[in-house]
Parts: sequence; structure tokens; C-alpha cells
Amino acid sequence: MPELRKDPVTGRWVIIATERARRPSDFVREQVAPKGTRFCPFCAGNEPKTPPEIFAYRDSGGPNEPGWNLRVIANKFPALRVEGELNRQGEGIYDKMNGVGAHEVLIETPEHMVTLSDLPEKQIERLFWAFRERILDLRKDVRLTYILLFKNHGEAAGASLEHTHSQLIALPVVPKRVQEEMDGARRYYDFRERCIYCDIVRQDAEQGVRVVLETDHFLALAPYAPRFPFETWVVPKRHNSHFEATESAAIENLAWVARVLVRKIDKVLERPAYNLVIHTAPIQQAAMWHYHWHIEIIPKLTKMAGFEWGTGFYINPTPPEEAAKYLREAGLV
Amino acid sequence: MPELRKDPVTGRWVIIATERARRPSDFVREQVAPKGTRFCPFCAGNEPKTPPEIFAYRDSGGPNEPGWNLRVIANKFPALRVEGELNRQGEGIYDKMNGVGAHEVLIETPEHMVTLSDLPEKQIERLFWAFRERILDLRKDVRLTYILLFKNHGEAAGASLEHTHSQLIALPVVPKRVQEEMDGARRYYDFRERCIYCDIVRQDAEQGVRVVLETDHFLALAPYAPRFPFETWVVPKRHNSHFEATESAAIENLAWVARVLVRKIDKVLERPAYNLVIHTAPIQQAAMWHYHWHIEIIPKLTKMAGFEWGTGFYINPTPPEEAAKYLREAGLV
Repeated sequence: MPELRKDPVTGRWVIIATERARRPSDFVREQVAPKGTRFCPFCAGNEPKTPPEIFAYRDSGGPNEPGWNLRVIANKFPALRVEGELNRQGEGIYDKMNGVGAHEVLIETPEHMVTLSDLPEKQIERLFWAFRERILDLRKDVRLTYILLFKNHGEAAGASLEHTHSQLIALPVVPKRVQEEMDGARRYYDFRERCIYCDIVRQDAEQGVRVVLETDHFLALAPYAPRFPFETWVVPKRHNSHFEATESAAIENLAWVARVLVRKIDKVLERPAYNLVIHTAPIQQAAMWHYHWHIEIIPKLTKMAGFEWGTGFYINPTPPEEAAKYLREAGLV
Repeated sequence: MPELRKDPVTGRWVIIATERARRPSDFVREQVAPKGTRFCPFCAGNEPKTPPEIFAYRDSGGPNEPGWNLRVIANKFPALRVEGELNRQGEGIYDKMNGVGAHEVLIETPEHMVTLSDLPEKQIERLFWAFRERILDLRKDVRLTYILLFKNHGEAAGASLEHTHSQLIALPVVPKRVQEEMDGARRYYDFRERCIYCDIVRQDAEQGVRVVLETDHFLALAPYAPRFPFETWVVPKRHNSHFEATESAAIENLAWVARVLVRKIDKVLERPAYNLVIHTAPIQQAAMWHYHWHIEIIPKLTKMAGFEWGTGFYINPTPPEEAAKYLREAGLV
């Protein structure tokens, strides 16, 4: 019998196919593999071919010169522009504003590597430090409300350049899915006076069936009502609404967790394309008891997108307990 | 300058790229073309190879025999099952229930045609009549709350068989996107005492820039804040929350509108894959003043799905005014 499960945060019901569950080998997918030899603007030495540097960690050299370990630049084709006023206005029943914001690219390594999972742990740690630095800088701009941190890995997930990189979009509005999470988490908090994510960490760590990985600082798990097969979350064990408030020991540990997790995903699902997104609280708001930052990773395994887009109704062919088991048992720890 | 626009129903903000807008020829897509000669269980004569018939319009023959014009069968791999109790239960903080519901396939023609736009108008009218019939039958089952009517056209949109068909999923819960629309429409109604969709029809018909097609009964338009390029809605001009309450003159007109619209889409976008979904009110609820059924069509033109899934934040490279202009000027009326 298939099962309907409710996401405890947003209230979304999802169908989980419990009979005839789809295993990793049942998914037809394109492996992300290096294509190779074309010119790459993200490689060390090609700094003049990119928009100017906003931020970098470097061993030597000056801005826009080689010698960096991680480099942040403006997106060459930005979805939003830094200049101008917000200028909110109506058009009859409709509302709009200028596309004010920032769109940056974080180049994760000077060498032409195509995946996060090949990077040394230290380099992944730098990525999370750079995310933190960019938030602390951008939040000084009070026009900005929210910062989206994400990584599209592989062409099928929307990456247009193969050199491994992440992105940041700073927005004057809160994205709908994050707002839904905050609203749902608030309802739960109003009812129980506990954080829903803290309760998820507690119950799942105890039950164990959906756990992929556990450390002192984080729980990596397959969520109870995932929209997609092998959807995986990384939730900090200690309550914290804002990613940028994470302490250094936890950032170090996060680098280890992220590296092991993407390597497990690469092993079990044969180097799939995926999207990784950090969900965190709006940057201008104070610490919240009801919201809890976390990472969501969605491997790109199925094509059934349009129906889901049209309805918000998801059919997931792989129960999270089975997905977690595959990832847990893949080793690499 | 890019523009941020707010969907007036759900409150979702979307980035609309107003510079460097993408035209139809800028999208790389797979054309939906017939593959041909493999055995097709949906063709007339192959009735014994499908699950038994639930409903049909026919000129001759009996159930599961040739002679039908349109045939409704159970899905061979159903996402939900008709048998059993709902059996709602908790698992600590989590909620679940049995996957009770129905999953049916509506075969739109006995001949092996691969697209709705090749069907005669009469046949498309039969499809909408069949949707209506199935709702009226299924709503007798009080376990069912909502009926999703949709069409996945082309492999890229999730269709696994090329013989043109639609689907129906009857659910014990309301899909999240429809619930969001009802909530947003309710807020608007509480504030203004008018239906938001009636206001959209009024303002857009008057402004004209986003109109694709207008008849006595329907307005086909590019919505103000579309998530996807060439997203198109068909909204009845007369207020009506439930699709199944549509009168016969409107159903006849809808067949004409749908046929012209998919032909326009086929012409402008070179036979793309697409998803078509009917958004209608929950079947067990009485007529509502604040909600208004409508059709949403989303051509499958872009790959940037994962980021959007992870955040609920959409970047649309084609302003709806330009999309509407292409479709409006494509002729075929």
C-alpha cells in the first residue's frame, strides 16, 4: 500500500511508494563527468576573464591575480543588480519592484575540478567560511532581506560551467519556500513551545531509520516526507536560526559532514547532478526560537517535474528509510 | 533592470528578466515527435492489454472492445489505491495515512496520435466532458477530497507513453499549491470582497498586453508573475469555483480555446513538451465566492529546476508581455 506522509514543517502531503520502491540502479541519469579541454574562466590564471573579485582567500598575489584558494566574483549574467532603489509600486491589482540585489559566484578551487567531493576538507571549510563572510558583508545593505546560498552541480541541475562553484543571491524579499518553512515552524512553536527542527533531530536520531550520518554537531538524514528520491537534509543539533551565527567548531565539522555526504551520494547514485541549498533565517531579523537553519540536497534523478510544479503534489518512488539505508551503508566515513 | 513581480494569488515573488529577454528560438528543447512503431496498449484493438475500462464514449461495441472515441482506464502503475480505510495516524511528531485514492488514465483518441493539437475539436470537448463525468462519479466517495486533472505531454514532461492521454488522481488531501491559491484568494476576498481571479480577468482583458486569446467564455493569458517562460493560464470569465459546475456552452468553447492554444504553443515553441493542469476547488466543498477554477499550461523549456525546487524562488527569462505577444500573433484562430 502506498503511504501519504505529511511534512511536519510545511504541511505538504507527499505520496511515498512503499511497494515496488525504486533502488539507486532504477534511475536513469546522466553522470556528471569532466568534459575537459575548453577554456575555463574560473581556473587560476584566467582572472582577467571574469568580473572583478569581491572577496578571496589567498596564499599570495593581489586581487584578480593567481595565488587564491577560493574566489568570489559577481555573476557575469546577474539575475539582480546592486544599483538603484527598491521602488515598490502597484499596477492595478499587481505589485512589483526593481530587481535590486546581488548575484555572486564562489569559485571553490583554483584548479579545474568538477566536483565538491574531490576537494580536500580544508577547501570545503573555506567555502562555508566564505558564505559566512559574504552574509556578514551583504547584510549591511538594509535593502536586502534574504541571502540564498546554493550549488547547482552538473548540467542537469542547471550548472552552466563545470569548474566546481557555488552561488549566492541576495534578495529584497524572502523566497516562498523559506517563508512557508518559517510560517510552519512558527505554528508548531506557538502550539508546543519547541522548535520543530530540534524535535526532528531528537526523534530521528533516536529512531535511527532515516539517519545517514551523525556527528557531535550535525544530523544528516532523509526527511520523513521527502519530495524527491534521496533528498537529504543536514540539520545542526544545536538550535540556531542563522547560518552566519554558526561557531567555528561547527563550521569545521560541517565541512567534514558535507564532504562525506557528497561522496556517499556520488558512490550510491553514480555521480549524479544535484542541487544543494542552505535554508537560513532572513538576514535583518534577530535570532528566532522557532526557526533553525539547515542544508537540503536534492539529487536530480527523476524527470517528473512538470506535474509537481503545476500542483505542489509530489510522488516519491523511494521511501526515505531505504534511501537513508543505502547512503548510511555506503561507508566512506 | 530586472523586475521583481508578485503573484497576486499566492504572494510568490518572481524575477522577470526584462533586459536580454529570451525569445522562443533561444530555448534548447527536445521536440515532441512520434517515435512510431512499437506496440501501443492505448490503440483501438489492444483493449485487453490495459486494465479494465471505467468509462468510455463509444459509437459501437461493449466495454473493453473497439468502437470507443475516448476511454478511461485505471492506471497500470497507480500512485494510490482505491481499496482500504484512510487510517490517519501519528508517528511521534510525524503524520501519515494510507495511500487511498484513484489514479486513472483518459485515452483521448483510439488512433495513435501523439498530440492534443492534432485532435478534432469534438474530441477535445469529449475529454473535458469525461473529466466532468469522472469528478461527478468519484466525489460520491467521501474519503476523497480533491481531484487533480492533468496532462503530461512529451517525455521531457513526464509522459511514459506517446499515445495522447490525460490523467486523473483523486486524493484524500488538497495539494499544497491549490491550498496556497485558495488561502491567497481567501485573503484577497476578505480584504476586497471580490474574487482575485475575476479581478485578473477584468484588468488583463482591459490592459490587453498579457492576453493570448479572448472569447465570450474564457481569457487565455500569460500571468503577471509567471514562474516559467510561456506559462499560460485559461481563466473562465464567469465566476465558478468548481470545474465540474461548468455549463455546456462553456465546455464547448473551452475545447475550441484549448485546441487553438496548444496549436499556438506548438507553432511558436516548435512542439515542446508541456504540462497542463486544471486547478479546481475541493470536490466535497460547496461553491466558493473566493476561488475560481482555471487551467495552467507550462511548456518545458528550461532546465533550471533544482534551484527553484530548493527555494521556491523563480527566475523567468521571458517577460509575460513578450510571451503573450508571440502567442497572440501566431494566428491559427
